[in-house]
Amino acid sequence: MITVDISALDASAIEAATERQNSLTKPQGSLGRLEEIAVQLAGIQATERPNVDGKWIVVAAADHGVTAQGVSAFPAEVTPQMVANFLGGGAGINALAKTVGAEVMIVDCGVAMEIPGPTAALVDRSQGRGTSDFTVGPAMSLEQADAAIKSGVEVAGELAAKGAQLVAPGEMGIGNSTSAAAITAAVTGSDVATVAGRGTGIDDEGLGRKIDAITRGLAKNQPSAEDPLGVLSAVGGFEIGFIAGLMLGAASHRIAIVLDGYIATSAALLAAHMEPAVTGYMIAGHRSVEPGHAIALAHLGLRPLLELDMRLGEASGAALAMSVIDAAVNVHNGMATFAEASVSNRDE
Amino acid sequence: MITVDISALDASAIEAATERQNSLTKPQGSLGRLEEIAVQLAGIQATERPNVDGKWIVVAAADHGVTAQGVSAFPAEVTPQMVANFLGGGAGINALAKTVGAEVMIVDCGVAMEIPGPTAALVDRSQGRGTSDFTVGPAMSLEQADAAIKSGVEVAGELAAKGAQLVAPGEMGIGNSTSAAAITAAVTGSDVATVAGRGTGIDDEGLGRKIDAITRGLAKNQPSAEDPLGVLSAVGGFEIGFIAGLMLGAASHRIAIVLDGYIATSAALLAAHMEPAVTGYMIAGHRSVEPGHAIALAHLGLRPLLELDMRLGEASGAALAMSVIDAAVNVHNGMATFAEASVSNRDE
Repeated sequence: MITVDISALDASAIEAATERQNSLTKPQGSLGRLEEIAVQLAGIQATERPNVDGKWIVVAAADHGVTAQGVSAFPAEVTPQMVANFLGGGAGINALAKTVGAEVMIVDCGVAMEIPGPTAALVDRSQGRGTSDFTVGPAMSLEQADAAIKSGVEVAGELAAKGAQLVAPGEMGIGNSTSAAAITAAVTGSDVATVAGRGTGIDDEGLGRKIDAITRGLAKNQPSAEDPLGVLSAVGGFEIGFIAGLMLGAASHRIAIVLDGYIATSAALLAAHMEPAVTGYMIAGHRSVEPGHAIALAHLGLRPLLELDMRLGEASGAALAMSVIDAAVNVHNGMATFAEASVSNRDE
Repeated sequence: MITVDISALDASAIEAATERQNSLTKPQGSLGRLEEIAVQLAGIQATERPNVDGKWIVVAAADHGVTAQGVSAFPAEVTPQMVANFLGGGAGINALAKTVGAEVMIVDCGVAMEIPGPTAALVDRSQGRGTSDFTVGPAMSLEQADAAIKSGVEVAGELAAKGAQLVAPGEMGIGNSTSAAAITAAVTGSDVATVAGRGTGIDDEGLGRKIDAITRGLAKNQPSAEDPLGVLSAVGGFEIGFIAGLMLGAASHRIAIVLDGYIATSAALLAAHMEPAVTGYMIAGHRSVEPGHAIALAHLGLRPLLELDMRLGEASGAALAMSVIDAAVNVHNGMATFAEASVSNRDE
């Protein structure tokens, strides 16, 4: 059983930050969502002037037994190969992390095959060598689901100790958009066909197999939205459980969470059904082209910052959103007020 | 008469950059618009691997005689006060420029009142102490319109000499969203009511006065879309002419242009009607909440990168978009290929 203590956002810091925004040398509201983000961060950090210098990108990797059903355009060996690529600095997320000045942590949550090359920098939180094929039984045991979430909560504690203020959980795992779609269907009650997409780029036939596999998996395991741990066990992934735990733990330490794409957001659905207060700590980084992502974000009541037709995962959309969040905080803290700059305010 | 020589984008660089994108360790197309931007920049700079280290934000300020018609929520004295704020580093654009690592240039294109405080860093390209009220005659003479554009072309040459690779023209000028709406109506043929918005936050009555002033200005001056210099002279602004020239000059030096909001985009409409090839050099930074902005962008055939409910001007939206452009270039140049990283490509 997971227990985390998540506070409500700080109302007086929100009020002070809102007043500050309204005194800065710009028409009120003219910086739109930058103003909203600054005020939300003030509430998260319980201070009028938030700071997001401590940026962390955490990429959680794991494999998925459901790939046996032919649901992905890429072979499963790509999961360990891409982990090696992350560790070597050659992946998209490495370039994006450098752009936004974020630290990167790579976590093995349950990769099936050996990772080629040096793995000294890899954090081992593996719950096993990939999940089971959920079309024939639960993806993982309830004990594994619980352990996956707990490992995420623990890593959040470690990040808090390192001064993290903004965390973007991302993922790598061939087959995991199938798991994300199954979770989204189970939690939101949406039709499978509306939440299953092309993932890394599967063709029409593959998409048919994916929808079929999810439908069979849900029928076989009968997950219920009232039991998020049961949903994770039934059709989830080790990295998805880890990310849900990372989000819960981050919120308990007043660390803001930047949501990435569909898979990370499916983890957010589980986290929010465990502890609804966690959503106050979430900023939706972007909307991916996966059709289920918009459904998952709407269920959380979140509006994405960016819509750039991305669908890479790895926290790539969240990393990019960090630059918008940075800008929001720099504007909030760095601009002069009307009084400081001797600028006339509007005719009232 | 303005003559600038704008080349078509380099087709072989576009091809090489596209091939490179398709060899990087990600599903093809999965970085969406980041891939598009990198390829466009390759075509602009005529190289497989573009670079955007030379970032410039140019804020052009001027006053507008049409403010006599009560079209703005802020008094005209705010234009020089905000120029002083830019020079002092306290405005939104200063905080945003710092965030994205861009140089800032502030240009007086025709501010009516004296600018308070030190002005050593201000670039003087003034065409007069504000335009005339376009409801009673042309905003400026054809000679002034021509000179405003030429001054922008010249400043683009100065920026090219300083190594600029990406330029974001922004503006400050109480009343200038009225001028932008009049230009947009004249160039696109749209109804005035569809292209006039609330600017810095005018109320319903003020919006009515604004629509009325634009309607009268267009009736009085009869600008024609076939004569962009005439449109500028009839209902434009000195800063808008300068920005149109800056865009033309930038394109002639193969410098990419990041469009800001409605006012900068109205200048882009004029530039595009003078030299259609300039649009290949444009990246639409964001879509502002001004209703006419989407109409102007559609006329240019451009899709905005960001939609963050912003409406500040000053190049604020374009500055923010620079961080996305930075990311696009860093991904393009920094990622490993499938071969380099020994990652299996998709099952084909």
